Amino acid sequence: MPVKRLLMTPGPTPVPPEVFAAMSQPIVHHRTKDFRLLLDRLLDRLRAVHRTENDLLLFAASGTGGMDGAVANLCSPDDRVLCVSAGNFGERWVQLAEAYGCDVVPVRYEWGETPQPDDVAAALEEAGGARAVFLTHSETSTGVVADVDAIARRLAGSGALTVVDAISSLGAVPLSVDESGIDVVVSGSQKALMTPPGLATTSVSAAALAAARESRSPRFYFDWARNLKALQGDPPATVFTSAVSLVYGLDAALGLILEEGLDAVFERHVRLGRACRAGVKAMGLELFSPDEDRSAVVTAIRAPGGVDGAEVIRLVRERHGMTIEGGRGPLVGKIVRIGHIGYVDVFDVIAALAAVEQAFEELGADVERGVAAAAALEAYGGEVVPA
Amino acid sequence: MPVKRLLMTPGPTPVPPEVFAAMSQPIVHHRTKDFRLLLDRLLDRLRAVHRTENDLLLFAASGTGGMDGAVANLCSPDDRVLCVSAGNFGERWVQLAEAYGCDVVPVRYEWGETPQPDDVAAALEEAGGARAVFLTHSETSTGVVADVDAIARRLAGSGALTVVDAISSLGAVPLSVDESGIDVVVSGSQKALMTPPGLATTSVSAAALAAARESRSPRFYFDWARNLKALQGDPPATVFTSAVSLVYGLDAALGLILEEGLDAVFERHVRLGRACRAGVKAMGLELFSPDEDRSAVVTAIRAPGGVDGAEVIRLVRERHGMTIEGGRGPLVGKIVRIGHIGYVDVFDVIAALAAVEQAFEELGADVERGVAAAAALEAYGGEVVPA
Repeated sequence: MPVKRLLMTPGPTPVPPEVFAAMSQPIVHHRTKDFRLLLDRLLDRLRAVHRTENDLLLFAASGTGGMDGAVANLCSPDDRVLCVSAGNFGERWVQLAEAYGCDVVPVRYEWGETPQPDDVAAALEEAGGARAVFLTHSETSTGVVADVDAIARRLAGSGALTVVDAISSLGAVPLSVDESGIDVVVSGSQKALMTPPGLATTSVSAAALAAARESRSPRFYFDWARNLKALQGDPPATVFTSAVSLVYGLDAALGLILEEGLDAVFERHVRLGRACRAGVKAMGLELFSPDEDRSAVVTAIRAPGGVDGAEVIRLVRERHGMTIEGGRGPLVGKIVRIGHIGYVDVFDVIAALAAVEQAFEELGADVERGVAAAAALEAYGGEVVPA
Repeated sequence: MPVKRLLMTPGPTPVPPEVFAAMSQPIVHHRTKDFRLLLDRLLDRLRAVHRTENDLLLFAASGTGGMDGAVANLCSPDDRVLCVSAGNFGERWVQLAEAYGCDVVPVRYEWGETPQPDDVAAALEEAGGARAVFLTHSETSTGVVADVDAIARRLAGSGALTVVDAISSLGAVPLSVDESGIDVVVSGSQKALMTPPGLATTSVSAAALAAARESRSPRFYFDWARNLKALQGDPPATVFTSAVSLVYGLDAALGLILEEGLDAVFERHVRLGRACRAGVKAMGLELFSPDEDRSAVVTAIRAPGGVDGAEVIRLVRERHGMTIEGGRGPLVGKIVRIGHIGYVDVFDVIAALAAVEQAFEELGADVERGVAAAAALEAYGGEVVPA
């Protein structure tokens, strides 16, 4: 039989057969009624997952394309912006804003720390305000999930637009766009949304659209106004060719998510995180990511002294065809990350734990073998099959 | 049974079952050896189809994203550029170059005319040279395929970079990138390459890469250097998440194309174009696109006086679930376009002709019914099944 190649990273993630089946439907043209009905439903479903009434935009691009568009549409050269960074993806906001010539004020934390509303508010005040504050919901390089809802509420009235990278968190961790007043949320198809990579989504508030009308940064493909005008045109259409198959897939995946129920999906992710952490602790290893319910996207394990985390990644891949991730930047070799978002169940987590503990033992770490699986299943709590 | 929804537009185009099957393979991570081997093979196959040794870049984006990247990487504000335009997609180069603040010299033809090497060379001389000349290989809005190889050869030594939109032509009509010295070719997955939309490709010469190092236009997601560095890194990887499923699909589709043989594929497209034109002429309608072998992408039919071409499109869609296209811009209502690229055989062309002639007759056009099918099959010449 073909090797079952378990994919346990925080993106891309495994795709359910229902989504592949949807993607294999014959191609329709993106300027037809059939496609338009599909697109309307998909955008409604996306709004439900975002908990917003804002306009939703869809791009054929990976998540970074959506981030690029957010900076290009909101910022002009020399605009002051705050980029809150506590890891690799926070740094991506910094790089992007620098690429567009912004006056970047980085608000940097150690990798692994959790950004706090008061810190961000103080930094914004110290900077004398900003055009926008760029935030990361789930910093997958460290496993930290920031409370961006609380940060956005804290910044209400500051005059700065709030922009959230929710690429690996949307559909895994609660986000309340309208309630928190988040102006822009960028996400992608290939994480908790259980679809292959290639679609970026962007929710945009009226204030963000107004700011985009003033931005002098050059843009075309990712231009919000151009894309939105086509979506709201008569007949409505996407301005450029849609990634039709991925749109079919994302629509099907969102249907699965909403059928399960958004709160039930979030709760499932909380339980998967608990299960993974319980397994790690049971085998005697130390967590790098916070041991709290919000750590529901990826669990980062600290490699004990003398053990190279990258070797763990290599061993589980070469032996078992399983993909997990190591550390990036300052964390290279120091952590091992197991993703558990999207089409992942507790037995996938248990499989990853089993492979990881074997590799750690072989590399000389002091781990207790064989207890993680039971600990994980107990911590998950309850059955996998819904009632 | 479900309606067979024949898709006869110049993009997106039908996708073979082999490609859908490839796309349904489990997702692999874009930073693994498995994926890298796949990507290497795909890039080699793309080079073969381009007839080039140049570097090939792959973006999760529709074709317009690749065009956007070409302008952003090559041009700085106020750079003089020539945009050769004889239709909707030539105008897209104009819009893009304007969006990036270029000093745009449009070389405009009537929609339906074929750009000529001497005209372009004269315009370039009159403009006092330019950073780049933007060309369209297959102008799908009119059905005209320009001889961009000849234009590029004519511009050799002019100092201007040649940039070709080959989105709907790559894999349908010959293009000899290295022999003709074409610096940049942008294409997309969803046309003759028989893959769903969502991947843009860009071939870049050494001169184009050198020019990109000087460009001051802001860019990140589409930045060539950033993408190329990752592809050539150690370990090699894509800089941002690849549209993994589409990459599987495109690789499979390119395998099918190269297995058939590039020249055989081009010849098949020539024969499909002949078949379509023969059918149109047999029913007594007038061609809008040139009656020549190079018109191998899309056949444009002139709607006779009093007949609204848009009604033809509507009728064949509503009655038969078939998608063909009408005119754009100045040609709205005046032409009907049948695409015949990619996973299309002569019987698909015959089906489109049968539906179109019925619609034209009903709308009062003077057409001869029932002769197009035989004329098309005769013009196609020979069998469909390869020897």
